[in-house]
Amino acid sequence: MHAHIIHAHPEPGSYNSALMRTAETALAEVGHTVTTSDLYGLGFDPVEKPQHYIRRENPDCFAALAEQRHAWNEGTLPDEVRLEIEKLEKADLVIFQFPLWWHGPPAILKGWMDRVFVSGGLYTSRMRYGTGYFRGKRALLSVTTGAPVHAFGPGSRGGDFDTMLWPLHYSLHYMGFDVLPPYISYGIQGHGYSYEGEDSLRDRLAGNLCDWASYVTHAGSLETLQFPDWDDWDENDQALQAG
Amino acid sequence: MHAHIIHAHPEPGSYNSALMRTAETALAEVGHTVTTSDLYGLGFDPVEKPQHYIRRENPDCFAALAEQRHAWNEGTLPDEVRLEIEKLEKADLVIFQFPLWWHGPPAILKGWMDRVFVSGGLYTSRMRYGTGYFRGKRALLSVTTGAPVHAFGPGSRGGDFDTMLWPLHYSLHYMGFDVLPPYISYGIQGHGYSYEGEDSLRDRLAGNLCDWASYVTHAGSLETLQFPDWDDWDENDQALQAG
Repeated sequence: MHAHIIHAHPEPGSYNSALMRTAETALAEVGHTVTTSDLYGLGFDPVEKPQHYIRRENPDCFAALAEQRHAWNEGTLPDEVRLEIEKLEKADLVIFQFPLWWHGPPAILKGWMDRVFVSGGLYTSRMRYGTGYFRGKRALLSVTTGAPVHAFGPGSRGGDFDTMLWPLHYSLHYMGFDVLPPYISYGIQGHGYSYEGEDSLRDRLAGNLCDWASYVTHAGSLETLQFPDWDDWDENDQALQAG
Repeated sequence: MHAHIIHAHPEPGSYNSALMRTAETALAEVGHTVTTSDLYGLGFDPVEKPQHYIRRENPDCFAALAEQRHAWNEGTLPDEVRLEIEKLEKADLVIFQFPLWWHGPPAILKGWMDRVFVSGGLYTSRMRYGTGYFRGKRALLSVTTGAPVHAFGPGSRGGDFDTMLWPLHYSLHYMGFDVLPPYISYGIQGHGYSYEGEDSLRDRLAGNLCDWASYVTHAGSLETLQFPDWDDWDENDQALQAG
């Protein structure tokens, strides 16, 4: 199996980076190959904008989806987008490693999706969901949050992770990925922010890295999440059971 | 009433920009004042990163929340963040105008939240939700999507807007805003992408601008969405009715 990790944290000494390296090592130890895209390290520009398109279909009015399709057809996609697509194409498993910021991914990761999932190239009206470009590949979110585990759940203070991660999960499903249950690392606190003693925190963080190593090495066989697909919708895109 | 519009679309000739100008005009016509933050026009950098912090609390290891708190306390927040906060402080109503990209906001808007909602300054463990910094102010998402209205709903192909917008709405609730029901403009298609004839599209888009103008001028009196708040949680942050 070949795994590719999309890493979205600004600090190499962070716990997110430790999780990324743990996955690299654990996957390599069981014989898999691993590549990474360190979005901060790459200086990836997450802002989809006209300046990325050197030969515009319409120089007078910028429509992102139309220019993506045009650049795909003409072979003029920006290099940093083309390289990301090549890395995804080689992977059986794609892991997204990021901290939860404002109930979602950091902007650098959101914009990676805005730019890399190219309209007209990696998806069309017929090539999406179960017929998506990346069908047969698996995707997995590894998310850190500062709040403790008990803060989360439906109606709870921190909110419910199923809802919180739905936009990301459903976007991966749209692209054809089989989506694994996310791995959440709770209570990841910087110095002076901790809910617990330093010894307890250190032990818990170390234990969590071991759990993550075990989880990620089983990613090829774990049961995937279920999302609605073509067979579940009528000709008006509505859920069949609701009709 | 003073309204502030956060605008997140790269093209001045887009329908999103028409919605933004429509809100400006409609609000001014009924006697309100309006300011805007055109994030693309400003060249707003959505990537939270060490380079934004000139006098670091910890130069060796970048922790975003700790550096935000430190910069707030020291008065060294980046100018572009400080200016955004000043504009929010003056507003009674904050409108977010953006296209739905991958079931969420464009990266430039996501990163506006990552950077402008400053930890330790605009929120603390006690100053959030009903006790949030922006309590008493109203927030409203105005979202465009290419898919037609019938594509949306629970289990439907496009997904459910309540779920899709939850991360944004709950983040605004976290900051103390009263959140209005979102205004969704469906079937906003670029040239050659339309589900319908050009005449029908033109009429529908024009009618939608009128509906939006009416909606936004009533934003001060519309009933707001309900989200869980301090009284709904036990001491472990769990929903009381679930305990």
